[in-house]
Amino acid sequence: MPAKADLQRLRSLREKKHREALGLFVVEGEKVVGELLAAKLAFSEIYATADWIAAHPGSQPAPVTVTPAEMERASHFPTPARVLAVGRIRRTPLPDSGLTRGLTLALDGVQDPGNVGTLLRIADWFAFDRVVLSPDCADLFSQKVINASMGSFARVTVHTTPLAEALAGLPGRTPVLGCDLAGTDVHTLAPLRDAVVVIGSEGRGLSPGVKACVTDFVTIPRHGHAESLNAAVAAAIVCDNLRRAAGH
Amino acid sequence: MPAKADLQRLRSLREKKHREALGLFVVEGEKVVGELLAAKLAFSEIYATADWIAAHPGSQPAPVTVTPAEMERASHFPTPARVLAVGRIRRTPLPDSGLTRGLTLALDGVQDPGNVGTLLRIADWFAFDRVVLSPDCADLFSQKVINASMGSFARVTVHTTPLAEALAGLPGRTPVLGCDLAGTDVHTLAPLRDAVVVIGSEGRGLSPGVKACVTDFVTIPRHGHAESLNAAVAAAIVCDNLRRAAGH
Repeated sequence: MPAKADLQRLRSLREKKHREALGLFVVEGEKVVGELLAAKLAFSEIYATADWIAAHPGSQPAPVTVTPAEMERASHFPTPARVLAVGRIRRTPLPDSGLTRGLTLALDGVQDPGNVGTLLRIADWFAFDRVVLSPDCADLFSQKVINASMGSFARVTVHTTPLAEALAGLPGRTPVLGCDLAGTDVHTLAPLRDAVVVIGSEGRGLSPGVKACVTDFVTIPRHGHAESLNAAVAAAIVCDNLRRAAGH
Repeated sequence: MPAKADLQRLRSLREKKHREALGLFVVEGEKVVGELLAAKLAFSEIYATADWIAAHPGSQPAPVTVTPAEMERASHFPTPARVLAVGRIRRTPLPDSGLTRGLTLALDGVQDPGNVGTLLRIADWFAFDRVVLSPDCADLFSQKVINASMGSFARVTVHTTPLAEALAGLPGRTPVLGCDLAGTDVHTLAPLRDAVVVIGSEGRGLSPGVKACVTDFVTIPRHGHAESLNAAVAAAIVCDNLRRAAGH
């Protein structure tokens, strides 16, 4: 049985300041906990109702049994789930080689957590080597980001770093691709082994410092009248064309 | 000055049953009202604060001035906007030629309103001839759908119809493309002038009746480990490849 203070601590993790202070994040719900367990994420604590525990023998770490009433006190949702899991916040520093090698998806001020999660899922699908978040993106450890990533949160390497600085330090031969309405047709991309794809925020697009580092503006051919595409949608189309151009 | 009953009526339009009973829908906020006015949507009523009206001379129909306190009573949001507009629900029946000609994006039980709106935006970007919604999709006239469409709501022709029946009536030569993990590589699509792209719900995929009508399963090549892509993301990649294959 968990202590009352434990339930309060779990509940407090919905706020970024408490996550940072404790170095912990929380996810709630059978779907997301199941996805992350399947992706081999090592949780530090699991809290679940007796029926969830009975249905998931051998879960690691051993779950603490909570009653539905206790879950209600810990829960972040109007309708509490049957399971809630806590993980340690681990941040991977950007290695010295930075963004030079392989494929990087770089998010510049993407503040919608659903979009950040969807972009992690896209990076996972297309096997990008890493995702880089500028510090003003939605918090990677928020439930909305983790839920929207559909388990990709546990599989993709993510670094948070000032993006313009990281891009400015790149050797000249690493292409930095940005989306624009007046760039090169994305269908004519050269085969690239190493590249950074930068995605701006929905409202403001790329920040000036990041935009200055873009070496190749690419355009998704438009046939109708929409002003733009959603950030994640545009990123996915660029990733598909990048992989297609590289012939693998 | 609006009557109290008017404010209540505006507020009631957040619910589908009231929209259906009155044959009206409402949108709120400067961004979405501006997008729809720019797209030449003919509203039947506009309610706005004096400062909005002063900043938008000549708006049609002539706006009714409301105080911030009145807006609060009419508003659907915790923070009321400065403008709210009402339009008539118009439904375009599917013509006899149905889905035979041109490009159709067909949504099969897509229940997330953000996804439905994003898919309208994608159909607009790629100049699809129409979007077809199965009756169990998110309501086209809900604010979340209209907001997420970023103005495409006013530009795309949308029909709501039982999808499996509409597809079953197609002549055999109109290809119906569905996404699948074991289909033909989407990069090898033949040039198609007429086609229907069907998109299933996030959770359940295509319904059995619609799945039975798919003539060509296509696969977006996967390089990593994500189980799937978001419905709108997958649709956008298929649309880009369809347009690319047709060479325009």
